[in-house]
Amino acid sequence: MLTKDRWYDDHEVGERRETVGRTITEADIVLHAGQTGDFFPHHMDAEWMATQPAGQRIAHGTLILSVAVGMTAGDINPQAMSYGYDRIRFIRPVFIGDTIRVTAEINEMSLHAKRPDEAGYLHELVTVTNQHGDTVMVLTHLYLVNRRTKD
Amino acid sequence: MLTKDRWYDDHEVGERRETVGRTITEADIVLHAGQTGDFFPHHMDAEWMATQPAGQRIAHGTLILSVAVGMTAGDINPQAMSYGYDRIRFIRPVFIGDTIRVTAEINEMSLHAKRPDEAGYLHELVTVTNQHGDTVMVLTHLYLVNRRTKD
Amino acid sequence: MLTKDRWYDDHEVGERRETVGRTITEADIVLHAGQTGDFFPHHMDAEWMATQPAGQRIAHGTLILSVAVGMTAGDINPQAMSYGYDRIRFIRPVFIGDTIRVTAEINEMSLHAKRPDEAGYLHELVTVTNQHGDTVMVLTHLYLVNRRTKD
Amino acid sequence: MLTKDRWYDDHEVGERRETVGRTITEADIVLHAGQTGDFFPHHMDAEWMATQPAGQRIAHGTLILSVAVGMTAGDINPQAMSYGYDRIRFIRPVFIGDTIRVTAEINEMSLHAKRPDEAGYLHELVTVTNQHGDTVMVLTHLYLVNRRTKD
Amino acid sequence: MLTKDRWYDDHEVGERRETVGRTITEADIVLHAGQTGDFFPHHMDAEWMATQPAGQRIAHGTLILSVAVGMTAGDINPQAMSYGYDRIRFIRPVFIGDTIRVTAEINEMSLHAKRPDEAGYLHELVTVTNQHGDTVMVLTHLYLVNRRTKD
Amino acid sequence: MLTKDRWYDDHEVGERRETVGRTITEADIVLHAGQTGDFFPHHMDAEWMATQPAGQRIAHGTLILSVAVGMTAGDINPQAMSYGYDRIRFIRPVFIGDTIRVTAEINEMSLHAKRPDEAGYLHELVTVTNQHGDTVMVLTHLYLVNRRTKD
Repeated sequence: MLTKDRWYDDHEVGERRETVGRTITEADIVLHAGQTGDFFPHHMDAEWMATQPAGQRIAHGTLILSVAVGMTAGDINPQAMSYGYDRIRFIRPVFIGDTIRVTAEINEMSLHAKRPDEAGYLHELVTVTNQHGDTVMVLTHLYLVNRRTKD
Repeated sequence: MLTKDRWYDDHEVGERRETVGRTITEADIVLHAGQTGDFFPHHMDAEWMATQPAGQRIAHGTLILSVAVGMTAGDINPQAMSYGYDRIRFIRPVFIGDTIRVTAEINEMSLHAKRPDEAGYLHELVTVTNQHGDTVMVLTHLYLVNRRTKD
Repeated sequence: MLTKDRWYDDHEVGERRETVGRTITEADIVLHAGQTGDFFPHHMDAEWMATQPAGQRIAHGTLILSVAVGMTAGDINPQAMSYGYDRIRFIRPVFIGDTIRVTAEINEMSLHAKRPDEAGYLHELVTVTNQHGDTVMVLTHLYLVNRRTKD
Repeated sequence: MLTKDRWYDDHEVGERRETVGRTITEADIVLHAGQTGDFFPHHMDAEWMATQPAGQRIAHGTLILSVAVGMTAGDINPQAMSYGYDRIRFIRPVFIGDTIRVTAEINEMSLHAKRPDEAGYLHELVTVTNQHGDTVMVLTHLYLVNRRTKD
Repeated sequence: MLTKDRWYDDHEVGERRETVGRTITEADIVLHAGQTGDFFPHHMDAEWMATQPAGQRIAHGTLILSVAVGMTAGDINPQAMSYGYDRIRFIRPVFIGDTIRVTAEINEMSLHAKRPDEAGYLHELVTVTNQHGDTVMVLTHLYLVNRRTKD
Repeated sequence: MLTKDRWYDDHEVGERRETVGRTITEADIVLHAGQTGDFFPHHMDAEWMATQPAGQRIAHGTLILSVAVGMTAGDINPQAMSYGYDRIRFIRPVFIGDTIRVTAEINEMSLHAKRPDEAGYLHELVTVTNQHGDTVMVLTHLYLVNRRTKD
């Protein structure tokens, strides 16, 4: 983990990052149920899910979201902070044993409305795919980033 | 955990739920780092954070999000599915030892564009507050819910 | 999780609750060994258990007990407290991948010997079954519950 | 962990074992909530518990039970199996930071009703105390143990 | 867990201990990644590893090391302390579902250079094997042990 | 996490990396005891340790080792594999709340004895310090790295 200053002005639309893969395990689901208290049978009851359309247990949406965001964490950038997320959509279920990968691409940049000389927002489109290449989740990650100050 | 059918038509704008409290612990942060792989010093390094404006370690945004959504899980409703989240914003940091509560209020309902007779969306505003009554996070949770079928 | 006052006098023998199912996973056993320090090969050594009558690893008794009691936790009742358990019996082993369900039925009620006007005991028979409908564990959960005070 | 045959006939009433201590931590409670799904505010909400008679969060009964039984696990005895528990009573709450110790004493032995030549029950009284010497939990652990076969 | 004084002079070269087995699970790897922050795809990405020579995910070296050392922990010896490890070598990969056993044998003893009357080192060769009898890891565990004081 | 080929010939003695800090928490110790099965009172019994020279619980050696090695994991290098560790020494205890940092410096390089044209060993000295700047652990991490092949 490196610390590296990157300012708003160092970024551009189209900038793109891609992660290695991570297999979502039964242990991940058990741990996520344990962290959140969500023991819904959709995630925890293999017998019942075998009778449902999905046919098997599915990962919690917040698990995939948390892991995917974690997978995109790269260098520490003292000039940026995570501001929020927009439009999180669960496109397809993630099953035990699926392997996800994440791509993150800046698809919009906008200066701060009140302090345009000081900061701006990066809108990073985060796309999570499984081993079949299907998109399972998307979200937009917003970062508030300082502008490079003049000397 | 009860299973109970509730249809789109059984809901109304203004419907509101409130949870009991939950204290966010150091163990929660350690476990969330372990689940997501995000070991940023903002969450894991007490010494360094003592030198930063926050003054202490802060919880991961995805931890608060996951726990808050988990806290709002109530009865199992076979007629509803979690469709996504909109406009997640991290308003204030959550520190180790803070106790959060969650309120969830339906503030918008909209019929499905293509199948208005069959389903609609609930927009539930989820507000997370700490023990001081300060809002720390907000998000809109979208549910896609079946309409009650006529007989 | 709702908070709801229920007094001794609000209950009756025969009252019965039933949970949804939960699959006992390898991760549950690993976590329970980690919590209790019980790493007996009966739970942890797949090779050796393949040579034993059971043929495979079995869940810790205290794991099934803890999960089953947890699964019966419903509303918060300020008038009741968990007093103890009687006659816990492990009837059949629970294997990795088994799905358990729990029924809890009040089969006895008795007033407090010294304060019969103030409190009484509920004896709730907790029965844990697997996906084959076999009973794997039973216990009696005792609650000490306040009597409804007159006005 | 050693494997050592001990038969019913090798035991006697009054036989007594004592463990070292173990401090019950906030992490233990968080992990136990996660394993059982019991997120009752009695265990998880420090703010609310500060307003209650106990004054602070208390450990789950099943946590203390599971840890105490785990602490008494000694050698592996192929001649014995855990048959069940009787009369578990929660005497005093266990708080975060309390250190428990466990003593286990055989206080009754009884031959198997139908197969008295083959097996018998050990009734081991398990007593859990805290760092003040107060008893916090008791239970009777029943073991079914083979009798030494004649040659 | 027993407390038992054993002095340097109570040991001899050739003394040997052997543990029961323990199966290394997917949950162990997930938990070890979570504890160490090492989410390398060698341990976490089943899809990618299927394309590599190993053919499947492998356990972290530090997981096998930590578990193996833990498995050799026996009685508490107030006269000994863990001084360090020498020459840890990872001979073969450990896969999910492999069952390891550990033998520990004192193969060298040496008096403390400056205080030969007071203490000495035990060099214990720790050998980890899998269910096929193949050695997967070796290390030398050094203990600094007090000498029996004369009266 | 990036994948980046670095050959033996791309390294040199004196090359040095430094990590950010990480606070060792009570939860880390609880989780490590749970992973390894080492529940020695030195790590788990606050009451008893208050009567010992250290005055408080200390982290497991294998915890600090595992975390420190994990903290030095950087880019994925397909040309290198972890070969083993030499001379691990525990210099000072690590207490709950201590914050460790790790430096890793190549202090020796040696060609493979039988295949000097193909591979070599990096000897990386890993030094773990606490928040007071005291060294708490050292080890040498050996990597076997391919040599850049001529074209």
